[in-house]
Amino acid sequence: MKRLSEEELIHWIAAGGEDAPAFLRRGIGDDCAVCRPAPGTELVVTTDLLVENRHFRLTTSPLADLGWKVGAANLSDIAAMGARPVAFFLAAAFPPDRQAEFKAIMGGLRAILQWAAAPLAGGDLSAADRFLFCATVIGEAPAGGALLRSGARPGDIVYITGEPGYSAAGLRLLEAGWRVGARGGVRDAAGAPVPPQAPARRCLTRHLRPEPRLAAGLFLRESGAVTACIDTSDGIAKDLRQIAVMSGVGTEIDAVFVRACADGALVTVADALGGGEDYELLFTVDPSREATFLNAYTRAAGLPPLRRVGRIVADHPGELRLLTPAGPQPLPVSGFDHFRPPRSHEPRA
Amino acid sequence: MKRLSEEELIHWIAAGGEDAPAFLRRGIGDDCAVCRPAPGTELVVTTDLLVENRHFRLTTSPLADLGWKVGAANLSDIAAMGARPVAFFLAAAFPPDRQAEFKAIMGGLRAILQWAAAPLAGGDLSAADRFLFCATVIGEAPAGGALLRSGARPGDIVYITGEPGYSAAGLRLLEAGWRVGARGGVRDAAGAPVPPQAPARRCLTRHLRPEPRLAAGLFLRESGAVTACIDTSDGIAKDLRQIAVMSGVGTEIDAVFVRACADGALVTVADALGGGEDYELLFTVDPSREATFLNAYTRAAGLPPLRRVGRIVADHPGELRLLTPAGPQPLPVSGFDHFRPPRSHEPRA
Repeated sequence: MKRLSEEELIHWIAAGGEDAPAFLRRGIGDDCAVCRPAPGTELVVTTDLLVENRHFRLTTSPLADLGWKVGAANLSDIAAMGARPVAFFLAAAFPPDRQAEFKAIMGGLRAILQWAAAPLAGGDLSAADRFLFCATVIGEAPAGGALLRSGARPGDIVYITGEPGYSAAGLRLLEAGWRVGARGGVRDAAGAPVPPQAPARRCLTRHLRPEPRLAAGLFLRESGAVTACIDTSDGIAKDLRQIAVMSGVGTEIDAVFVRACADGALVTVADALGGGEDYELLFTVDPSREATFLNAYTRAAGLPPLRRVGRIVADHPGELRLLTPAGPQPLPVSGFDHFRPPRSHEPRA
Repeated sequence: MKRLSEEELIHWIAAGGEDAPAFLRRGIGDDCAVCRPAPGTELVVTTDLLVENRHFRLTTSPLADLGWKVGAANLSDIAAMGARPVAFFLAAAFPPDRQAEFKAIMGGLRAILQWAAAPLAGGDLSAADRFLFCATVIGEAPAGGALLRSGARPGDIVYITGEPGYSAAGLRLLEAGWRVGARGGVRDAAGAPVPPQAPARRCLTRHLRPEPRLAAGLFLRESGAVTACIDTSDGIAKDLRQIAVMSGVGTEIDAVFVRACADGALVTVADALGGGEDYELLFTVDPSREATFLNAYTRAAGLPPLRRVGRIVADHPGELRLLTPAGPQPLPVSGFDHFRPPRSHEPRA
């Protein structure tokens, strides 16, 4: 493959884009992208840096899946605000002789941007001795409508979408040597093909190609019943503590929820509470609106399942407690920290 | 110094910020920052990735200057759109044992954000084996007002602010062994102190602590006389060609401008035309408004000097030509390309 110059690569990227929607007056090609916020809206903005061999390994996942995931990690933050993504920016660096890999990664990123109807609006390209990505996404919500972490009140009920812990279980399979081919074929650590119905596939898919909960996020915001929301990128324990700290409340997790998280084979309780990269939505619901909310949620089409996690309390603000038959017990918060050495039970982010 | 956890570092960063202005409903601490665009405005967005030992070297510049420059590179793009910066996002990665350096770099970034009245609104932190920065900035302009690269028309006059080439000359001094101490003391390659009045100091300052032309950019936009604008981060030749390509016009550079760029000692013509990181504004003015524009510009306080570069022509669209006594000659475009090997005359970006 001919190696493209920086300018040619930017053209290649710009040419692959969809027509710019109304929000973008000017996309790739100027000093800045130019955005036109609609009257009566507010914007939410998130940025994430991903470094090869620290946040991802090109050896364990197909390149297109990596591109998908770069998009998913950021779109999940937009989902957590109950917003709609309107512009995506990608700054990327990589070794000049690895343009073919970059293009394959861009293929996966384009796929999720199309899935999310979010246009690639700008970015930056440079060379480095490994792959680096920094994605920035802008989302739109009605003015005053974006969901924050800080609105939880004592008495609120805590819910989570989807299947916490599946991503951590999928990562463990990949680290044990399971492999997914570019066409979706899966082989276990011994190299034997894995049948399409195998439960392990769900874990691998949730880790490699997570679907940010954009539709659920919009539903939560529009319901008017949700008081606080966060996406679970660092594990339920760490993320729920963020809600507790930011809202100045305590939280109690039901033992029945914890037991239900472990599926008995692939997914452990530690995966569910401390596993990263789930990209589920963890949120609190006003108890006076809970019944109406659940009713509407279960009738809506295309939303992920919900599980009741526990409730918000006034005492022990900023802390997590586990509700056991013997009463509430403190729950130590684990989770990934970039600036201290990892412990064995922690996911690698 | 005690090593902080990721959470503690985020607190340290958040605590150093100013009060959030009206534009920011929510800054650091949630899944996303929440921004409130004013009615009748449009937003401009830029993102830049900077990699240690590729875009900068910690050995050649004081740490605070590096932080300043991370901000300057991005704020310059906002200036080029004629916009006012309203929110700055920083994604950073670095080795966990180099927190002291990170804090010193943040000191310089804070200084320029304060200078530019741009609040730090969010970001991302992670560990890596070297320093990486990805800055994203949002700027605000009246709806339809942002200056683009694509508006130049035949007959327009090309101008540039400030002193092109000084940054490249400053970089050459640093590469030759000149050093600037944290307190501003300068020593030449032989280690001898350099007096405060020495012309070399201006080159070093323009390279290490460039001031993005925000005030000039606002003036250009408000004048209504400017048809296209770009900031010179890759050298006049490459950046002017961007205006030519995006506007579908040709450009002619006056030989007298080229001669005037070289100061006879430190700054060469190659520095001025091909040197990177000047962060000056290169723009085109409607000839029917030129006199009024120049009149107002020279009366305004605090703006950098202007130089006439040349003019826009209809023929040879997308190309640069040098106006010599023998007639126009094609001017080869050089400039840094991340994806091909550097030539000897090119700046290292």
